[in-house]
Amino acid sequence: MSEQDRLPMNHFDDQGQAIMVDICHKQPTLRTAVAGALVRMRPETLRAILDRQVVKGDVLGVARLAGISAAKRTDELIPLSHPLALHHLAVDFIPKADAGTLEVRCTVRALERTGVEMEAMVGCSVAALTVYDMCKGADKRISIEQTALLFKEGGKSGTFRREETT
Amino acid sequence: MSEQDRLPMNHFDDQGQAIMVDICHKQPTLRTAVAGALVRMRPETLRAILDRQVVKGDVLGVARLAGISAAKRTDELIPLSHPLALHHLAVDFIPKADAGTLEVRCTVRALERTGVEMEAMVGCSVAALTVYDMCKGADKRISIEQTALLFKEGGKSGTFRREETT
Amino acid sequence: MSEQDRLPMNHFDDQGQAIMVDICHKQPTLRTAVAGALVRMRPETLRAILDRQVVKGDVLGVARLAGISAAKRTDELIPLSHPLALHHLAVDFIPKADAGTLEVRCTVRALERTGVEMEAMVGCSVAALTVYDMCKGADKRISIEQTALLFKEGGKSGTFRREETT
Amino acid sequence: MSEQDRLPMNHFDDQGQAIMVDICHKQPTLRTAVAGALVRMRPETLRAILDRQVVKGDVLGVARLAGISAAKRTDELIPLSHPLALHHLAVDFIPKADAGTLEVRCTVRALERTGVEMEAMVGCSVAALTVYDMCKGADKRISIEQTALLFKEGGKSGTFRREETT
Amino acid sequence: MSEQDRLPMNHFDDQGQAIMVDICHKQPTLRTAVAGALVRMRPETLRAILDRQVVKGDVLGVARLAGISAAKRTDELIPLSHPLALHHLAVDFIPKADAGTLEVRCTVRALERTGVEMEAMVGCSVAALTVYDMCKGADKRISIEQTALLFKEGGKSGTFRREETT
Amino acid sequence: MSEQDRLPMNHFDDQGQAIMVDICHKQPTLRTAVAGALVRMRPETLRAILDRQVVKGDVLGVARLAGISAAKRTDELIPLSHPLALHHLAVDFIPKADAGTLEVRCTVRALERTGVEMEAMVGCSVAALTVYDMCKGADKRISIEQTALLFKEGGKSGTFRREETT
Repeated sequence: MSEQDRLPMNHFDDQGQAIMVDICHKQPTLRTAVAGALVRMRPETLRAILDRQVVKGDVLGVARLAGISAAKRTDELIPLSHPLALHHLAVDFIPKADAGTLEVRCTVRALERTGVEMEAMVGCSVAALTVYDMCKGADKRISIEQTALLFKEGGKSGTFRREETT
Repeated sequence: MSEQDRLPMNHFDDQGQAIMVDICHKQPTLRTAVAGALVRMRPETLRAILDRQVVKGDVLGVARLAGISAAKRTDELIPLSHPLALHHLAVDFIPKADAGTLEVRCTVRALERTGVEMEAMVGCSVAALTVYDMCKGADKRISIEQTALLFKEGGKSGTFRREETT
Repeated sequence: MSEQDRLPMNHFDDQGQAIMVDICHKQPTLRTAVAGALVRMRPETLRAILDRQVVKGDVLGVARLAGISAAKRTDELIPLSHPLALHHLAVDFIPKADAGTLEVRCTVRALERTGVEMEAMVGCSVAALTVYDMCKGADKRISIEQTALLFKEGGKSGTFRREETT
Repeated sequence: MSEQDRLPMNHFDDQGQAIMVDICHKQPTLRTAVAGALVRMRPETLRAILDRQVVKGDVLGVARLAGISAAKRTDELIPLSHPLALHHLAVDFIPKADAGTLEVRCTVRALERTGVEMEAMVGCSVAALTVYDMCKGADKRISIEQTALLFKEGGKSGTFRREETT
Repeated sequence: MSEQDRLPMNHFDDQGQAIMVDICHKQPTLRTAVAGALVRMRPETLRAILDRQVVKGDVLGVARLAGISAAKRTDELIPLSHPLALHHLAVDFIPKADAGTLEVRCTVRALERTGVEMEAMVGCSVAALTVYDMCKGADKRISIEQTALLFKEGGKSGTFRREETT
Repeated sequence: MSEQDRLPMNHFDDQGQAIMVDICHKQPTLRTAVAGALVRMRPETLRAILDRQVVKGDVLGVARLAGISAAKRTDELIPLSHPLALHHLAVDFIPKADAGTLEVRCTVRALERTGVEMEAMVGCSVAALTVYDMCKGADKRISIEQTALLFKEGGKSGTFRREETT
């Protein structure tokens, strides 16, 4: 029970029933969240994505739009999340050609009563999944390695920054 | 260019334009795909999820439904994927309490003209994201570590099974 | 346990986990389902709906379209239902002006591997809810009294017809 | 025409054309709505749902999530309703085992320019329909008997409370 | 480059990557937009639509609802548009029976941080497409001739009014 | 009434009620449809789109994806259209730099019981609307001039090809 205090799971009520928690009495504040996902593939697959002479199609452009579109629909995907009026969305890619890794970052901002972490998590996940979709014909073993919240600001829990783990 | 043969990215046409590839002339066959994602959290968070005395709410039940619902909407999330008539969907969880890892598996089956890998990938990703959503109040550092296709059967490319990497 | 045989709830697997059941091995057959809902309101409200001299707007026309559109999205609303290719949808209204009751009927047909009952139930429910929405300014006490499956045909469980209960 | 004053149907303009009414000049106030639906089934079906020894799956847990998710999408289902930023959603169940009735209640709260009645009505309807879906293999005659608005607060029309009808 | 100043395309960042632009620091103001589309058909087709003795169904009623419903989903259709809380939506039709033209107008209002032009453009486009859908059995050559923004008010760019071009 | 034979509007039943027509007894055949829309803008706007030195972002790439994604959701936008399993989708652009016109073409293929015209019409319309969205900061007077079905094949009504009108 003291355990429970340390593990607040606020999507449940006192009876353990799933709810969308009441945020009526919270004030809107400026919220920012950044989440990341790391797509690992064979180095030649990544080089082909980056070298538009080899693969003429714009893999990253498609994945970026997929991530932005999905982030806008977070409340349809994550059952107990609130519908939020997102004010900014961006998806960036940081490729490391030699390692065969492509980092996906999704940034979300909104003036809202609750955080936008899930929107950032959904945005980078769906962008990464779309990279997988577009390259799976070339490499079925592509994996998405490290999807995590990187940064969060706004709201009473203060600023969060994930320390580098590697 | 010989490179390009080894890296078929069939979501683009000859001019490099994104398309939904034509599958009119393919025959429907029985397709199965299994994808997995590994959620890593503090061991006490996982124990709280598993011990319904501590956290009364059903985290895994909510995440399972989220994964099933999202897999049905894969064609809305992944821009160049085909709308498919899914015939079976299941999401399973394999917790390792000591390690603090929760494996999510999504299985999809359909009689279709193209594979159901993306549906399985989306299903396990959104189930994992929902676990994150429900536990982020307790532990913001939860990460999703290894989202990958585990198994694929049906279609002319034959059976694929991902070897264990650990 | 013999109890359980009499109460098959096939949206759960052996461990009691929610699944979308596997219908890969079932053959498509012609399926029909009819569901009904009874909207009860003050007789003068119903007369106003029916008498286009009084209320010029087409309440039933709006409700019909809402029901048809919602039935097409049943698999997004009912978590464990299969996405189905619906081939026919109709919503009819049978008003009894003196009693103040408006019966809503939704008919669905499809060549499919599983029944279309839920599509008919969703269609008549959302049509009835839309009638409520459009008339609630005039009468908040409108209620939807009897939503039920009326008829079902096709599939191995045979023909079902609900006996009149009044 | 005096009739029409008593029957304001504000989803139509002066020509009787369906519109989404203009709420630009209304101020946001705290709105609450509670709606209910009564699912009637054979007493042994209800006992099976409640006794997790008999039916291991969590029928009510699935139905609760379906109701919450559907309420968030009310503006997609009810054609002339406004998109609203919902701040709280809950679905509760009150079973009466002997009578074979399961009452479904959906509570919605938001700081908005218009009421949230339809969101509550949609939430309890889809939760009830999901109970039907999960139990229809055991009992096709389950019906949803009394879907109605129970309570409404906020906005200039004041507080509404439905008197008990039984 | 001076060219670029005259052609601000604000859905891209400095690197030319598609983004949903940040509107956090803009204040909500009252926004109005009106867009129009002109459906051209054979005069007898239009007369049939208008003369409910000939074609009993309500083509324009169906198209109006389709336009209103689609405008509410603009942020799902237009990838880089913001989700907006629309406060008013209307679709009007202005037929010219002799010319065989049907003008579709969609009006949108909202208190928002960005304009509602796209919502009006989507609303009149989908209403026009629905007219096409309902009449294509009679006349496949129907075309939608002039979809354009007619009026825009609110926001710092001031009032815009399209001059008549005919 | 002989009129009515020449103007078959098959989305209504005998009472003039909107329905989704029954296609159960039709056989699936290979269907193709091509629709086009003409976006007219100032020549310098079009040159800016085409010259990636001037506007670095990929306007046409974003519009193409928007069109493909929207075509997949035609049955959600056009109220009486059937949900179809689309097998191929492509969006092409044919710019005429001097005239300032950009032709948008959407091609759809499916093995289905009914035609895919509406999917092609929706695809080219939403692609054109997205071009408008991305360029409206530079040129609010952009208009979409000629949205029409260009080609249709498959089904018992035979092949249709729109003659050039200019």
